[in-house]
Amino acid sequence: MTVHTPTVSAGPLPASIKIYKPGHIHPDIRVPLRQISVHPTAGEPPVTVYDSSGPYTDANVTIDIAKGLPRIREGWLANHADLAAYDGRHIKLEDNGFVTGERLTPEFPVRNRPLKAKDGKAVTQLAYARAGIITPEMEYVAIRENLGRDAARAKLERDGNSFGASVPDYVTPEFVREEIARGRAIIPANVNHPELEPMIIGRNFLVKINANIGNSAVTSSMAEEVEKMVWAIRWGGDTVMDLSTGRNIHNIREWIIRNAPVPIGTVPLYQALEKVGGIAEDLTWEVYRDTLIEQAEQGVDYFTIHAGVRLHYIPLTINRVTGIVSRGGSIMAKWCLHHHRESFLYEHFDEICDICRAYDVSFSLGDGLRPGSIADANDAAQFAELETLGELTQIAWAKDCQVMIEGPGHVPMHKIKANMDKQLAVCGEAPFYTLGPLTTDIAPGYDHITSGIGAAMIGWFGTAMLCYVTPKEHLGLPNRDDVKIGVITYKIAAHAADLAKGHPAAQVRDDALSRARFEFRWEDQFNLSLDPETARLFHDETLPKEAHKVAHFCSMCGPKFCSMRISHDIRAEAQKEGMSAMAEKFRQGGDLYMPLKSTAAPTPVAGDEF
Amino acid sequence: MTVHTPTVSAGPLPASIKIYKPGHIHPDIRVPLRQISVHPTAGEPPVTVYDSSGPYTDANVTIDIAKGLPRIREGWLANHADLAAYDGRHIKLEDNGFVTGERLTPEFPVRNRPLKAKDGKAVTQLAYARAGIITPEMEYVAIRENLGRDAARAKLERDGNSFGASVPDYVTPEFVREEIARGRAIIPANVNHPELEPMIIGRNFLVKINANIGNSAVTSSMAEEVEKMVWAIRWGGDTVMDLSTGRNIHNIREWIIRNAPVPIGTVPLYQALEKVGGIAEDLTWEVYRDTLIEQAEQGVDYFTIHAGVRLHYIPLTINRVTGIVSRGGSIMAKWCLHHHRESFLYEHFDEICDICRAYDVSFSLGDGLRPGSIADANDAAQFAELETLGELTQIAWAKDCQVMIEGPGHVPMHKIKANMDKQLAVCGEAPFYTLGPLTTDIAPGYDHITSGIGAAMIGWFGTAMLCYVTPKEHLGLPNRDDVKIGVITYKIAAHAADLAKGHPAAQVRDDALSRARFEFRWEDQFNLSLDPETARLFHDETLPKEAHKVAHFCSMCGPKFCSMRISHDIRAEAQKEGMSAMAEKFRQGGDLYMPLKSTAAPTPVAGDEF
Repeated sequence: MTVHTPTVSAGPLPASIKIYKPGHIHPDIRVPLRQISVHPTAGEPPVTVYDSSGPYTDANVTIDIAKGLPRIREGWLANHADLAAYDGRHIKLEDNGFVTGERLTPEFPVRNRPLKAKDGKAVTQLAYARAGIITPEMEYVAIRENLGRDAARAKLERDGNSFGASVPDYVTPEFVREEIARGRAIIPANVNHPELEPMIIGRNFLVKINANIGNSAVTSSMAEEVEKMVWAIRWGGDTVMDLSTGRNIHNIREWIIRNAPVPIGTVPLYQALEKVGGIAEDLTWEVYRDTLIEQAEQGVDYFTIHAGVRLHYIPLTINRVTGIVSRGGSIMAKWCLHHHRESFLYEHFDEICDICRAYDVSFSLGDGLRPGSIADANDAAQFAELETLGELTQIAWAKDCQVMIEGPGHVPMHKIKANMDKQLAVCGEAPFYTLGPLTTDIAPGYDHITSGIGAAMIGWFGTAMLCYVTPKEHLGLPNRDDVKIGVITYKIAAHAADLAKGHPAAQVRDDALSRARFEFRWEDQFNLSLDPETARLFHDETLPKEAHKVAHFCSMCGPKFCSMRISHDIRAEAQKEGMSAMAEKFRQGGDLYMPLKSTAAPTPVAGDEF
Repeated sequence: MTVHTPTVSAGPLPASIKIYKPGHIHPDIRVPLRQISVHPTAGEPPVTVYDSSGPYTDANVTIDIAKGLPRIREGWLANHADLAAYDGRHIKLEDNGFVTGERLTPEFPVRNRPLKAKDGKAVTQLAYARAGIITPEMEYVAIRENLGRDAARAKLERDGNSFGASVPDYVTPEFVREEIARGRAIIPANVNHPELEPMIIGRNFLVKINANIGNSAVTSSMAEEVEKMVWAIRWGGDTVMDLSTGRNIHNIREWIIRNAPVPIGTVPLYQALEKVGGIAEDLTWEVYRDTLIEQAEQGVDYFTIHAGVRLHYIPLTINRVTGIVSRGGSIMAKWCLHHHRESFLYEHFDEICDICRAYDVSFSLGDGLRPGSIADANDAAQFAELETLGELTQIAWAKDCQVMIEGPGHVPMHKIKANMDKQLAVCGEAPFYTLGPLTTDIAPGYDHITSGIGAAMIGWFGTAMLCYVTPKEHLGLPNRDDVKIGVITYKIAAHAADLAKGHPAAQVRDDALSRARFEFRWEDQFNLSLDPETARLFHDETLPKEAHKVAHFCSMCGPKFCSMRISHDIRAEAQKEGMSAMAEKFRQGGDLYMPLKSTAAPTPVAGDEF
């Protein structure tokens, strides 16, 4: 078959190069970082930032999505005695929604035999961590997280309020291992996703963000979805969830995973529902189980599983303003109610764990009963489910499975902290992964902002990963621009949270950008920003000429009203007369100062005086 | 002279009509509110919302900006025995930057004699409040603030955390008077701005937002500025600051004020600086004083006065990352340093108060030393100035002048609350009015969002008014779209703050919109949102057909995956079998439930089983 291979967004970001740091325990690992250079006049080293974008932004890599990304973990995985390759499940017609012929998305050209644990062994990062083993993945994320801390170490002034988190001054591989061993962090890394550049999700690490993509019954194609994934990580998406429904799910997902350097999450229930023709009542454990295996063999790194939606919680949602707003949650609720049975996800949770431990698929325990409106926030249904997710966490941990917990939703600001506190209390500090929350319902079209507020706050309070919300939330399907706006908004929220938690190196980039701003290094200001393209574009809308990018005043105010330019004059003047002498003189006061007439009673002025 | 009168954006918002409520103490006042109707199937009354947009959105009013808005306060002001009309200051060439001929913006066609207090009397709302008088302005804002509380009163369940604010269940005119008398709220209402629809700024009232407009040396005209003002209030701007620099300042401002139903604020120093050719050192108290009178006679409702930038604070800014970022602050600092003198604003503060009390111009005490970067947040310079603003507040209050205090700026989340706490402590609970704050420096192009996060939080903590930031902040001049995005973002922040503070009626709109969402009343969802145009546009991008706006599923997911549609099925099923009986049955548990096998040890599964 001839596959017309689509191209994706590639190439470095402005003024940036990709560098790779080797490991010490595992010398063959190469941890990618992005270095942003600044103008020579700054007299400053380049700024190193976290880089989720994968090989796409490496000028030395040729991208061919029909080949997939380099399988960097293949060698690491080959060392695991507990893993073995096998033939794997056969692809069935139902996997792609029974679509055939021209409408079938072509299979990914290369097929590798899947890996799986031998004889029920656990091959999870949690199992290795508990056994005292520092895997390449663990060292990889330690180096990745340390970003800038080497430089910051010397003048380390920790600041911030971490609400009980223990962000270390410096991340060692051993620290990573400990955090994983105690369930407080996860590295989502399916053994069948060797293309993955490992990353860590946990309260004591940088706050991460997830971007959702996915085709739907209505629209979209393989090419679009792969590009959306590449586009989302280019701007900072740390993980990507493929929420596809409709047809061609299996084949599109294969293309996505083979080209994804970030963990891919899914909601397997969606595909299971497609396999039974969209009739929730027709779902069975067998179809669901088969779907888990199908996706685990493909390399999905984490599964959202709505096993906390129990039969007797459903009546708690009946008087809600917005009922059940989670797709998975509503599907399971309908199934439970129709059959008058406990959820098969809950009943078979043990078996789900057995699958996950054999491939190291992490759990993202879904909040199927999250509130969909301010009115429903923090209600009985939501918190009942959260307690069940806590129980399930213990079961999964007993099976050596990695777990994170999904959280809301729509929550007004004063009710956000209670979510974090309760999650920490009942889920044993497993990482929290929230959707926003949206802090008001009244702004459809701007829900990246209503939720960005809540996301920044809950990130500060301890949420480990923030699931983005795009401007199209509640209204339609996000396009490319929406994906970018959603990602940037959530990078802002995550970074604001890192700053407020007192992450030791978070402020390095703020300071570099602010110095550039103060010194009128316009190009540096653009390049150091989260979205250099937009920053430059907005500047050029007002002052398009090249000369304006070297101008020593801000276009907003013009030269006479430029506070920064005046500040430089002030500094020059201060330096002329000796700064410290001046400060001393000013401190002493003396005849430089006229005392203020602190008149208690009003002094009337004659009307004609002014 | 023939004036070509430009047109401005006018007409009602979708599904909205303007209603007017009369007063009881002052029966002639007509307080505007917006009623948004919902679809008859909802069986709900219309939703009444606060309306800052003035006569422009009243379908029954013909707008002619060459005539100006109706002078609704003229009759009220005629009752003040302490006021008298006089000829006023002559317009000088320097008032418009010495521009003449064709480049001179035409004078506003109508000229009224200005009013001023007789014989040094105070004609401020604060003076009347202290005298126990409930002015028409006070009753007006009481009715305006009560919005929806009548309806909410019956089922009032107060929620939220107000951090010590005392938002009442119901706002009486007497409550307004008391809050003004103790300086905790202000009604910016110059006696020469009779077109004003009064509004109140205070911690125990709805959180307000300000939008900045203004021409600059670089660009813009009278027509553009009037339209920007009308556009900003159409989307919810509660006050507008005219930050014009460059030429034609006087005449453009006259057009703005004569057409503004909201308070207009200015920074008089900008015009004073223009009058001395942009040379900060050439500023004099006389030029400044003359500018204050010029603007007070025109009807400016509040002045930003950077009187807290004292000479001996300047050295505290020398080692900052971004120096002094307030325009007014840097200009005054330069003046002080050059002359080695205390600021003339500080020295003549008494006299400034005398001017303000004669016209009821409110003070917005400027934070000239606010931090311009995360690195500079909450530093010695910032807080030293804040303490001085506290001293000045006492002086202004002693003169019966209304006061609010400006706040930062750039502040990471964990340092925001300290700003509010300190402001409350040192400024006697005078209303706080903050610019954002921006919670990170790294996202130029998205500073409406970096600052919207901080604004929502500080609004929750007690800030009374939030000054918007547009996407163009730090980069260029905001256009019409930027103004709208800035306003909507800040309406979100203010509303999120009201919800979190536990404002008794804030959630009414959220609930109405969420019910519309759950019932697939798409049109209602658009109409009840802060920006109906964008909500509709985004929806139609995915599903443009009219049929899709009556569709009983969400376009994002399609019918099979629509959680809300499934929720309705669940409800129907629940109702069929009797909801309460079902809830009871579920609560009891019994044989409906399979107990979860809580296996502590992992149960290995055979490898070939899946």
